[in-house]
Amino acid sequence: MKLQARYGGIGYDIVIKRGILSRIGMMVRLGERVMLVTDSGVPKRYIKTVAAQCANPTVLILSEGEGSKSIEAWQRIVSTMQAQGFGRGDIIVALGGGVVGDVAGFAAATYMRGVRLCHIPTTTTAQVDSAIGGKTALNLSGVKNTVGAFHHPCFVAIDPATLATLPARQHAAGLAEALKMGLVGSRELFELLEHQPIEENIERILYHSLHYKLQITQQDEQDNGNRRLLNFGHTIGHALEAASGFGENRLLHGEAVALGMLPMLESRSLARRTRAVMKKLGLPLRHSVSAEQILKLISSDKKREDGNMYTVIRVKTPGGGYLETIDFEELRLLVQAE
Amino acid sequence: MKLQARYGGIGYDIVIKRGILSRIGMMVRLGERVMLVTDSGVPKRYIKTVAAQCANPTVLILSEGEGSKSIEAWQRIVSTMQAQGFGRGDIIVALGGGVVGDVAGFAAATYMRGVRLCHIPTTTTAQVDSAIGGKTALNLSGVKNTVGAFHHPCFVAIDPATLATLPARQHAAGLAEALKMGLVGSRELFELLEHQPIEENIERILYHSLHYKLQITQQDEQDNGNRRLLNFGHTIGHALEAASGFGENRLLHGEAVALGMLPMLESRSLARRTRAVMKKLGLPLRHSVSAEQILKLISSDKKREDGNMYTVIRVKTPGGGYLETIDFEELRLLVQAE
Repeated sequence: MKLQARYGGIGYDIVIKRGILSRIGMMVRLGERVMLVTDSGVPKRYIKTVAAQCANPTVLILSEGEGSKSIEAWQRIVSTMQAQGFGRGDIIVALGGGVVGDVAGFAAATYMRGVRLCHIPTTTTAQVDSAIGGKTALNLSGVKNTVGAFHHPCFVAIDPATLATLPARQHAAGLAEALKMGLVGSRELFELLEHQPIEENIERILYHSLHYKLQITQQDEQDNGNRRLLNFGHTIGHALEAASGFGENRLLHGEAVALGMLPMLESRSLARRTRAVMKKLGLPLRHSVSAEQILKLISSDKKREDGNMYTVIRVKTPGGGYLETIDFEELRLLVQAE
Repeated sequence: MKLQARYGGIGYDIVIKRGILSRIGMMVRLGERVMLVTDSGVPKRYIKTVAAQCANPTVLILSEGEGSKSIEAWQRIVSTMQAQGFGRGDIIVALGGGVVGDVAGFAAATYMRGVRLCHIPTTTTAQVDSAIGGKTALNLSGVKNTVGAFHHPCFVAIDPATLATLPARQHAAGLAEALKMGLVGSRELFELLEHQPIEENIERILYHSLHYKLQITQQDEQDNGNRRLLNFGHTIGHALEAASGFGENRLLHGEAVALGMLPMLESRSLARRTRAVMKKLGLPLRHSVSAEQILKLISSDKKREDGNMYTVIRVKTPGGGYLETIDFEELRLLVQAE
């Protein structure tokens, strides 16, 4: 399956195909020098498969985890490229999950003011969501995405076969983003998740998720309007993620987002259907964070925005998400009702 | 005098006016929070004048010099912004020369994936050239401009009165960039420099230089074609700059560029006229670097580009610059002939 992205004057292909990992070299002009950025969580055989298709690969393996979304990791990439004589015509290949995509993407956005980037996402979250849209970012002193840039890949290769090696919980957390897209913008996707077996339909799930994300981000590349629909579940989700800490109750990002969507559904019947899908996907249905704690975290998160109003995303029927600006009291009622 | 820049969907004004420093607040929507980035070489009264027009300024004074075009200085800016709660709607004001513009510009390009930027260049080089065009950059381990981004300001305020406090040699080196623009693209500018008194005409010189730079960069924002005309004098100039070292023979960038233009002029009469302008501006007319040394440095600089050909800029008549691709032997003949 193939999608075509068009952002202003820029266009690129997104190909979803089992086994595409071993055919990257035929799909993208890799050229003379390739900077292959990956992390220690990516199976070695994927790295070998991709590297074998490059004439002259430089492989950089970052440590797995959010810690690599750092200025230090970015600096390691661009310094290596400088030392190896990479030029403006060369390419960075990002093989891995969201962290690898973000840091390698920021390196591609900034090395010599921009070089080509090929995304090969290998996690569910990255395949369903983060590999497209052009956002790249680094964290700064524990704050997520403080620095970054918009930089589009020249090609995105999605091999659903790589999902087989993912831990089940991480896979489910990635599918939460597909559920988000279905609820907010695609009834077809929501009903696919609701009625069909997941693994047999993974390509279609990826396709519909990416199709919706393309549609939204092509309208609003710079994230000033409708792109905020993609933040469905994130206001409360971020609070849940932060409150769950790093212990055994720790929620993954996708899990927290799914739980954060529930209070924003407008009807009991939609909430019931959504919970059934969450259960089917293997997502948690409850958390142990109090409404007060959630509200406190949301209002402290707020300091970087203007005013006392909150823009939230609400959903009436599957595919019918919309932006709504509410005050803190209205937000409190929603959070407490859940 | 006023110019209007148009790059794709982005447009902004460039105002050249004595005393504009004290009227910035009336020209730009500075908003609630302003990050004012400057350096220790900028007279304190300029900083005070600008800060006094901001409701809530955060002033960051970098050390003067190329050393501040670093990842560390950039990190200091974005970390300060994060700590002070700057948001996507806030603005960075860059008050100073090329280094301040580059590092503050890169911060504006990358903080929260891009915030507004106002350039207030206070050196001749920055007023005549670097404050427009949208290039931002940092150096990495001594290599210039390895990382960077394209990011346009929302306003450029040029106060020629600030040039009065510059050392004469630095002023002359800045005017070398105006001479470059005249030779490569504007007969009117060249003849202005040739026949009219400089200081009385400084506004017109700035205007014509910026007008030409706008014209070229608007055609070729990403630097893939004609924008390279702006590199006139730079191939040899960079070699001269590097070879002159840091001692008493050290050449300033503009001085080296002016000397680097001479071998690329096609006629003796144009070379004679150009030398006369250089003398008038107070630029050096000779250097002590051998042709062999220049050629050696150029070929080692070359490693990041493809092939063995060199794209140089040659000039036949004032305003008549063009790109030419030559091989190393042809380059050798040009360098040795001078």
